[in-house]
Amino acid sequence: MLDVIRAAGTISRVGLINATGFTGATISTLVRKLIDEGLVVETGRAESTGGKRRVLLQLNHTSRYAVGVHLDHAGITYVLTNLGGSVVARLARAGAGAEDPSTVVARMAAEVSALIDGVDVERDRVLGLGLVSPAMRQWEGYPLDRALEQATGLPVVLDNDATAAALGEHWSGGIGGTATSAALYMGTGIGAGLVINGITYRGTSGNAGEIGHVCVDANGPVCWCGGRGCVEAVAGPAAVVASALAHPELRLELKGVSVASDFAAVSRAARRGESAALELLERSARYVAVAARTLANLMDLEVLVLTGPGFAIAGAVYLPVVREELERAFFSRAAHPVDVRLSRSASTAPAIGAAALVLQSELVPLNEGLRLPENLAAAEPAPLPLP
Amino acid sequence: MLDVIRAAGTISRVGLINATGFTGATISTLVRKLIDEGLVVETGRAESTGGKRRVLLQLNHTSRYAVGVHLDHAGITYVLTNLGGSVVARLARAGAGAEDPSTVVARMAAEVSALIDGVDVERDRVLGLGLVSPAMRQWEGYPLDRALEQATGLPVVLDNDATAAALGEHWSGGIGGTATSAALYMGTGIGAGLVINGITYRGTSGNAGEIGHVCVDANGPVCWCGGRGCVEAVAGPAAVVASALAHPELRLELKGVSVASDFAAVSRAARRGESAALELLERSARYVAVAARTLANLMDLEVLVLTGPGFAIAGAVYLPVVREELERAFFSRAAHPVDVRLSRSASTAPAIGAAALVLQSELVPLNEGLRLPENLAAAEPAPLPLP
Repeated sequence: MLDVIRAAGTISRVGLINATGFTGATISTLVRKLIDEGLVVETGRAESTGGKRRVLLQLNHTSRYAVGVHLDHAGITYVLTNLGGSVVARLARAGAGAEDPSTVVARMAAEVSALIDGVDVERDRVLGLGLVSPAMRQWEGYPLDRALEQATGLPVVLDNDATAAALGEHWSGGIGGTATSAALYMGTGIGAGLVINGITYRGTSGNAGEIGHVCVDANGPVCWCGGRGCVEAVAGPAAVVASALAHPELRLELKGVSVASDFAAVSRAARRGESAALELLERSARYVAVAARTLANLMDLEVLVLTGPGFAIAGAVYLPVVREELERAFFSRAAHPVDVRLSRSASTAPAIGAAALVLQSELVPLNEGLRLPENLAAAEPAPLPLP
Repeated sequence: MLDVIRAAGTISRVGLINATGFTGATISTLVRKLIDEGLVVETGRAESTGGKRRVLLQLNHTSRYAVGVHLDHAGITYVLTNLGGSVVARLARAGAGAEDPSTVVARMAAEVSALIDGVDVERDRVLGLGLVSPAMRQWEGYPLDRALEQATGLPVVLDNDATAAALGEHWSGGIGGTATSAALYMGTGIGAGLVINGITYRGTSGNAGEIGHVCVDANGPVCWCGGRGCVEAVAGPAAVVASALAHPELRLELKGVSVASDFAAVSRAARRGESAALELLERSARYVAVAARTLANLMDLEVLVLTGPGFAIAGAVYLPVVREELERAFFSRAAHPVDVRLSRSASTAPAIGAAALVLQSELVPLNEGLRLPENLAAAEPAPLPLP
């Protein structure tokens, strides 16, 4: 119900009956309950279509909030979003670096408090905290979610960066509510998050969207995953950095601190017009575009967003190459194009998505995914998925 | 509801409450209605778990039937399946060849009658006819579905071969009801049908699963689709046949009637132990395996079935190569394997799937797909999705 209202923006009770199939009596009861809980407000009347002008409903955007956190070596990004998915506060702080996990968690709890208090949001309106982070060696075995739950007093939901970014783009990037979209995420590696009809698709073990391990050259180099010619091995950030290291001039730009920072250095060199750097990125872009076409052909995608720190700095090189590939060779281009976009919030998308995960668990019960019996369960009015 | 009962095999009313989230009162009413309609029967009691032994429900398999038809140049396959998805009758007849569409339709109507009458099923228990066929030039613009509807008096549902085969394998091949599976279909080309949590996934324009146009060599030959190095161009049946034509001995086997019949000729030569033929198929299998890995990595698949006429004849060569690739290089193999199977009904799977489409439109309202609002609609008890 809430997600239907969110996707519609504003909708009348009759509209809800049509969209959900519930009876008028059920809709009346549910809407009354949502209004009592403060989650939904009445917001004027629709244009007349002949009969009585209908009262429109919309989410009460300021009734609930969620915190999204993207924890990384190099930086921690915090956002506070409201029930409508809009970012109402953001913070960028120093990364985890080599610090002790418990020290970082204590600092994060203080930074989360600063985030919430900075915009005067009452704590009990914050539903929870979504957290995304890449695998970090010194954190292995550390119960990050429980520690952070204890330190902040908020329920914590963990997810991976590409899936969170996909959801974040879907919510904040103006993608239609029920579109089938993917976010191509370039950080240290390349991943994709998939959103089918507005719901994150995770696959059998939560590993769907491993586009970094899509083969672009069956006779290519062996990848660490065991396959041959994976796009990440052939053309991912680490491959770009390795090629740059072999280049007499470019190698001077590289500090060797991390793949991400060296990839950023190559990208800056390309922006300055250094042709060797630009050539490396353009070669990478051609392979990434081919992998994007493979994904688009398999999923019959409507929207593809380039996001994450890699595209935040080098997106201007990749975007036209990916667009050209899909305009020329997307299988279903006669039926519809793939709308390829560069994220307007590539560096904050994972944090926004992490917050969206928390909000989605409010709007659509979490873990429901696409399993039919559970969808049926979610549609049962009796135990409403409300706090 | 019906699909939950079908997937469970047998289930008690309490089981239904747990699986659907409906209240006990709702379940009672719905079950009573299904029993009155003859769709569900009570079938004994469950083992006691301490309390009263619960009455078990199951689909009344013989209450409804569907016809599935796979129309092709070379042959027409008919099946009649019951509500449980079991094939109760099948027929194989001459293909469409170059015959006039209306002649073929008149013959098909007679053959459908022979199919149904042969097992004494009452006509009014047959819900409809599912039809799959490849694109056939002389049929372009011919309103096949309406003509067949008129000639048979049955509602007709059209679909593509790979999607129908995937659904057919899911229903008849013992794949778990809510598994995420794909059928790799080799006919004249290579396609895939995708089933996410038991429901066919079609994508934005119904073209999801275009695995034939997954790139396996970014610098490979240009494909008719506009891309480079598509697996179909590099290693599909037409590519195998082209290589065989260039081979002095193998070319003698080829009649040039169709790609499918020439591919079958190469496969028979391989079975007879002709090493040149075997080498061609094994080369093809290596590329197909790489495309299968790409699909498995993107979708995080549980089950992959090799099906369709191509695998029906050459599956013994492809199966071990695809299995080996996924055992060695499937990204999520530490979490779970991909169960790679050769269909036991590769040549009839599309027809079975076509019938399953009709049955699924009975069990789960058609076109519901994965769209959330429509799923909600489907869960609304009021207008039951029954005839």
